[in-house]
Amino acid sequence: MAVALAEDLLPLGDLTAALLPAGAEVTAAFVPRDDGVLAGTACATEAFAQLDPAVIVEWSADDGASVTAGSTIGTVSGSLASILTAERTALNFLNHLSGVATLTRRFVDAARAGGGSARVWDTRKTTPGLRSLEKAAVRAGGGWNHRGNLSEWVMFKDNHLARLGVEEAVRTARATWPARTIHVEADSIDKVEAALAAGADAILLDNLGVDGVAEAVTMADAHVARHGGKRPLLEASGGVTLDTIGAYAATGVDVVSSSQITLSAPVLDIGLDIGP
Amino acid sequence: MAVALAEDLLPLGDLTAALLPAGAEVTAAFVPRDDGVLAGTACATEAFAQLDPAVIVEWSADDGASVTAGSTIGTVSGSLASILTAERTALNFLNHLSGVATLTRRFVDAARAGGGSARVWDTRKTTPGLRSLEKAAVRAGGGWNHRGNLSEWVMFKDNHLARLGVEEAVRTARATWPARTIHVEADSIDKVEAALAAGADAILLDNLGVDGVAEAVTMADAHVARHGGKRPLLEASGGVTLDTIGAYAATGVDVVSSSQITLSAPVLDIGLDIGP
Amino acid sequence: MAVALAEDLLPLGDLTAALLPAGAEVTAAFVPRDDGVLAGTACATEAFAQLDPAVIVEWSADDGASVTAGSTIGTVSGSLASILTAERTALNFLNHLSGVATLTRRFVDAARAGGGSARVWDTRKTTPGLRSLEKAAVRAGGGWNHRGNLSEWVMFKDNHLARLGVEEAVRTARATWPARTIHVEADSIDKVEAALAAGADAILLDNLGVDGVAEAVTMADAHVARHGGKRPLLEASGGVTLDTIGAYAATGVDVVSSSQITLSAPVLDIGLDIGP
Amino acid sequence: MAVALAEDLLPLGDLTAALLPAGAEVTAAFVPRDDGVLAGTACATEAFAQLDPAVIVEWSADDGASVTAGSTIGTVSGSLASILTAERTALNFLNHLSGVATLTRRFVDAARAGGGSARVWDTRKTTPGLRSLEKAAVRAGGGWNHRGNLSEWVMFKDNHLARLGVEEAVRTARATWPARTIHVEADSIDKVEAALAAGADAILLDNLGVDGVAEAVTMADAHVARHGGKRPLLEASGGVTLDTIGAYAATGVDVVSSSQITLSAPVLDIGLDIGP
Amino acid sequence: MAVALAEDLLPLGDLTAALLPAGAEVTAAFVPRDDGVLAGTACATEAFAQLDPAVIVEWSADDGASVTAGSTIGTVSGSLASILTAERTALNFLNHLSGVATLTRRFVDAARAGGGSARVWDTRKTTPGLRSLEKAAVRAGGGWNHRGNLSEWVMFKDNHLARLGVEEAVRTARATWPARTIHVEADSIDKVEAALAAGADAILLDNLGVDGVAEAVTMADAHVARHGGKRPLLEASGGVTLDTIGAYAATGVDVVSSSQITLSAPVLDIGLDIGP
Amino acid sequence: MAVALAEDLLPLGDLTAALLPAGAEVTAAFVPRDDGVLAGTACATEAFAQLDPAVIVEWSADDGASVTAGSTIGTVSGSLASILTAERTALNFLNHLSGVATLTRRFVDAARAGGGSARVWDTRKTTPGLRSLEKAAVRAGGGWNHRGNLSEWVMFKDNHLARLGVEEAVRTARATWPARTIHVEADSIDKVEAALAAGADAILLDNLGVDGVAEAVTMADAHVARHGGKRPLLEASGGVTLDTIGAYAATGVDVVSSSQITLSAPVLDIGLDIGP
Repeated sequence: MAVALAEDLLPLGDLTAALLPAGAEVTAAFVPRDDGVLAGTACATEAFAQLDPAVIVEWSADDGASVTAGSTIGTVSGSLASILTAERTALNFLNHLSGVATLTRRFVDAARAGGGSARVWDTRKTTPGLRSLEKAAVRAGGGWNHRGNLSEWVMFKDNHLARLGVEEAVRTARATWPARTIHVEADSIDKVEAALAAGADAILLDNLGVDGVAEAVTMADAHVARHGGKRPLLEASGGVTLDTIGAYAATGVDVVSSSQITLSAPVLDIGLDIGP
Repeated sequence: MAVALAEDLLPLGDLTAALLPAGAEVTAAFVPRDDGVLAGTACATEAFAQLDPAVIVEWSADDGASVTAGSTIGTVSGSLASILTAERTALNFLNHLSGVATLTRRFVDAARAGGGSARVWDTRKTTPGLRSLEKAAVRAGGGWNHRGNLSEWVMFKDNHLARLGVEEAVRTARATWPARTIHVEADSIDKVEAALAAGADAILLDNLGVDGVAEAVTMADAHVARHGGKRPLLEASGGVTLDTIGAYAATGVDVVSSSQITLSAPVLDIGLDIGP
Repeated sequence: MAVALAEDLLPLGDLTAALLPAGAEVTAAFVPRDDGVLAGTACATEAFAQLDPAVIVEWSADDGASVTAGSTIGTVSGSLASILTAERTALNFLNHLSGVATLTRRFVDAARAGGGSARVWDTRKTTPGLRSLEKAAVRAGGGWNHRGNLSEWVMFKDNHLARLGVEEAVRTARATWPARTIHVEADSIDKVEAALAAGADAILLDNLGVDGVAEAVTMADAHVARHGGKRPLLEASGGVTLDTIGAYAATGVDVVSSSQITLSAPVLDIGLDIGP
Repeated sequence: MAVALAEDLLPLGDLTAALLPAGAEVTAAFVPRDDGVLAGTACATEAFAQLDPAVIVEWSADDGASVTAGSTIGTVSGSLASILTAERTALNFLNHLSGVATLTRRFVDAARAGGGSARVWDTRKTTPGLRSLEKAAVRAGGGWNHRGNLSEWVMFKDNHLARLGVEEAVRTARATWPARTIHVEADSIDKVEAALAAGADAILLDNLGVDGVAEAVTMADAHVARHGGKRPLLEASGGVTLDTIGAYAATGVDVVSSSQITLSAPVLDIGLDIGP
Repeated sequence: MAVALAEDLLPLGDLTAALLPAGAEVTAAFVPRDDGVLAGTACATEAFAQLDPAVIVEWSADDGASVTAGSTIGTVSGSLASILTAERTALNFLNHLSGVATLTRRFVDAARAGGGSARVWDTRKTTPGLRSLEKAAVRAGGGWNHRGNLSEWVMFKDNHLARLGVEEAVRTARATWPARTIHVEADSIDKVEAALAAGADAILLDNLGVDGVAEAVTMADAHVARHGGKRPLLEASGGVTLDTIGAYAATGVDVVSSSQITLSAPVLDIGLDIGP
Repeated sequence: MAVALAEDLLPLGDLTAALLPAGAEVTAAFVPRDDGVLAGTACATEAFAQLDPAVIVEWSADDGASVTAGSTIGTVSGSLASILTAERTALNFLNHLSGVATLTRRFVDAARAGGGSARVWDTRKTTPGLRSLEKAAVRAGGGWNHRGNLSEWVMFKDNHLARLGVEEAVRTARATWPARTIHVEADSIDKVEAALAAGADAILLDNLGVDGVAEAVTMADAHVARHGGKRPLLEASGGVTLDTIGAYAATGVDVVSSSQITLSAPVLDIGLDIGP
């Protein structure tokens, strides 16, 4: 937050706000220009608080709430100069994070429309420096969080598996990192089979298409029927869009992941309307 | 950069890369999955360098270059574990910034297609913490930078002008901040007239539509014909999309600004292909 | 501020204050030892607040006020130990910044005494790390701020112009950085002419002496009479002292700049008097 | 250093240097405009190195050297754009710190001219954030460092002694902080006597005037003659100027301290001359 | 590292090293005073490198190696002053982290001596600011890492379970955080049963004593025999010492955890011997 | 503190606390599991405050107080989720620092039991990053602080004296650093004699054993009897344990130092008991 304010204010501060009449006070309303899902309210509050602790921000909606164009979802009161100076920083956070939440909600709704109970997962493809905030915005939008970072669990992708066989990889991982989730990427039906055999806790079905994913689900169910135990978590990934997510969700996978919801979400335009 | 690596690695580092055979070395290629404009190469290089100074990154294309899907635009060589660990951070920067450059280029091309010589301008609606990088990506894409921040020049928006008349505002600004550009927002033809009369250096024609912008240009030219001097820089803003920017550019304005190019640009998908 | 406190306290804190009787409270007065102009009160307040939030600082004069030797201009109340520990850090900020404001005021008064309406401008020659604070102290002293930093506007000095002709330089700058002020240094009358012809927004008349500056002003007025438009802002610089600034100001230039006010200002000695 | 560069460059970098022909290289010379003492060369080198590691800085004089106006004392070679961009930050450090060293040298010379062997001491009155650098510049100028900060030794000033008698103060300090120097301020001959009796390691003779200081020296010598042991270090302080320091030094005190050398030193003007 | 050097050097640097003859160079040897396990070599190298990049550190043993008292395990060469200045910071890291590795190794050996294949696990009881380094030292000592932090997996302790029944807790966790390990603390046999029934991935057997732990293992095996699936990871914790860990390990649990190895490990004394 | 919380929470926060019922509030008690000496309460308070400013921490014992197993020494009230999330960070500080204070107290008591009035001194062997806190914990435990860091006073160890004779070393130090304590290490009786002759302010009697230390004390007393002046502070060091410190203290030295109290102190186990 301090970095975001600094990049907008250094070195001379807000040249324009310095020209406003001293002592002018105002109450302004946060008003979405489009319908969407709210996220990032704590960031917006903090932007004003760091600039001027006397400014008061109040919200009538929480992160995760559906908000409608034209409605007032919160207010900010205090020095006009302070409010205009911090406005853009506050809105840059609020609108970006609400954009993430809004697009996530659309993916969640599209997944549900397809039937099945698959959840929408995010990825590690997040804006540098905003990982924690964007992952929280995904939750606000009704999505779930894939691993937070490289330290959270073991995940073998094709580049790892080119050096380690699946069976060896999973065995080494269990020995080295007790209690961690072991996640294996499979970009073919053969590799799904290998991952099941190796006892992976989760399998990333990568670019298999809807039919390939469905086949993998069937294979996993058969594996459980034969060997007992819990079905590994099945993740569909690759080529997932608003148009296709319903079909993926309908296959019976546990989660469908998309990097679009964090990296390519358009902002939700929320403005600050200052009364006369 | 240190923050971006930390958020992906704390507290235990990359659990998976730790399982790779020690000493494995590799050369990998940066390969775009789509056509676009490159930006952020220095960030990608730095991500690898901070993680492991022994990793070597080389680029065959510079920021601003048009790149084509499937071509190799650079390589990274060194420890397999280091490369896989830093890959996501490097690509998160590279793909986001190249996404900004790519969308900027599309706006620039669309503006040119409309005729006229209007430039594409960015805004202060940037991702918190990434202002400098995104503004550089806009330049890489052929766009130009609006003011960098609140400290760079004076800009009166409607909320300022509700307290200060235009004439008074411009006069005070000249007196307080000698040599600064004075920029005035005008959301009606009447206000354009007032801004011209007040001697603003730049006028933001906000939400006037193509016809309103054209009328403002005519008015400004007439003002210069009558009073001499230089025409203030005219900026069209509001409702500018890829579909409409050509028409705005054709009106004869100097710049057309859009927040989409920084805040809502989809990533350019550039992958890292690791050889066998 | 945290850095300034740390450099005075690490690693063991204030050895001496630790020996004071616990619980001793005191009220102390800020008293200037000389007449001058106040600046930096917010820094002094913050120094005490960061060391001990229970300490209360109140000011009876604002930044920019003229203060007289021996008068009480503010008080600090609270723990004796806390006050003695933070005193030096608070006063180091207050006295340095008030010193800048005081010297600025003397330059401003000397310029006015010369007649004309030239303003006193600072430079980028500021103490590393204190740019924003010193520029604010200049404003408190009645001076004005030159560009805040290298990012604020374009300024061609002799070293740039050795590679780029003036006309080409100004043209390229307008094309690359729309709406920015273009400032050109001229260290001879010929170069003033070139800068006028090139349409610079501001011209730095460097080391021309009072007569040279007067000649340049005449030339600029003639240029406007002939070609119309606004006279570029004319800045006199080089060899400006308290003795000479009046003569420079009388030439009709718009601003006279001096690096002395930030880099070589003696402190205004303000002490903290602790009652019995 | 990173802070100093950032305050001069955020958010868009050096607008002007960006207009220079790509690839232009240059060698420039550091040339003092006045005679003085050099300090801060490592800071200047670092400013260029952080901006562009390919720039090479070489010095033909070390910190502490006397330099003469017009001579070349070092060079910087590399990208013209990089050199012009980092120039001001580098020189702000170099000129300020050389100014401190230069004024210190003048005080040292004036003290020596007075006879006696008193050393020139600095104080804790330093520019916030630059304590370590300014104290090193004092050493470069031939001065010595008083305590570095509040954690370095115990020093009782009048405000402490208003709560603690001198004898009690010294005794408590010895008990609480074994092995530390105990320094006592005395602003009257009576207090000098008390400090001697209490066994202080050092006595600050504050505002006693030259005669008072001489009297105190005599008293301390008599005390040693009577009681044996080492004479405490005697520091003269208050009203010490270039005109008076010789007289103070001639009294036989060990050190004479002045805050002017750090807080009110005019810069030594060292410029960067770039060849044709 | 920068913080550790700063706390040992501010504000004046190393007063003593400044008195050494300029240019003196030396090679010194890292020599353990006791047998132990090495860890933290990268930190020691970095301490010297940050103080003086010209100092060269070379190791003949890697982290995790058993080192013996009196042997040379590495050398540092370069400026005598630099080496003496950075020595303590380097050794503070090296000796603390090697102490952690050494105590871990003793626990690992004691666990093996008890029979069984239980691994030694660390905890989140680490020194503030050193989490990553201490967890790496545990691995160097042959131990394994429990979750890195609160973000890595779900772990219900008694205070959580006082508000949430075990079954509900596990179900909610699976729904909210797909693919995460769900770890449940059980401080009684009844709670072990509940955790097994709820399908926890790991069960912390807290303060059950050796017999209680053995009973829990039997119960878990029976649960698997009856219901199929994988046995949850069983962790013994509480009252684990070098004397008791063998008995705990012999019960058949998967891991035995101890906070002693990070929070209460005595340093391994490694000195720096500088030749004549 | 921010670093300590971040290393326990990045990137997703506390997965488990997020599952607790919203709005649950609680009061919990800090209860030592063993007898000991309290230190670090301000750190524990700050850990909760930074995580959630609405949490209230109150202490019924101050740093330095003896606390007994099973007693309540403080409470924390507020959101259950916040308290459980910050608990470990708060306790990691509190328990480590109380462990330092507790071990210090044991050394202090053992020294007193030996007779004599020697004080217990710490060293610069502290945990990287925690220097200030650990030195404060030593004071809380009744110990005293050796020099805070390399900048505080001059201390010649064997490696310095290998290049500088003792007499030359002390003379140079007095000339270079007026008013500083000059401390000389002596690892033989001959070197003690040299240090006395050179006029050191303090002598470190290193690894001389109890008899050697006693001989040194006698020698120093004889030196004072013969030459007058103050006896230098005598420090016994090397091989000092709880078993031997009494004998060292009985020799008449001024201080006995031990690195164990900071680097190898086991934690004092203080838990947080949350009511039903």
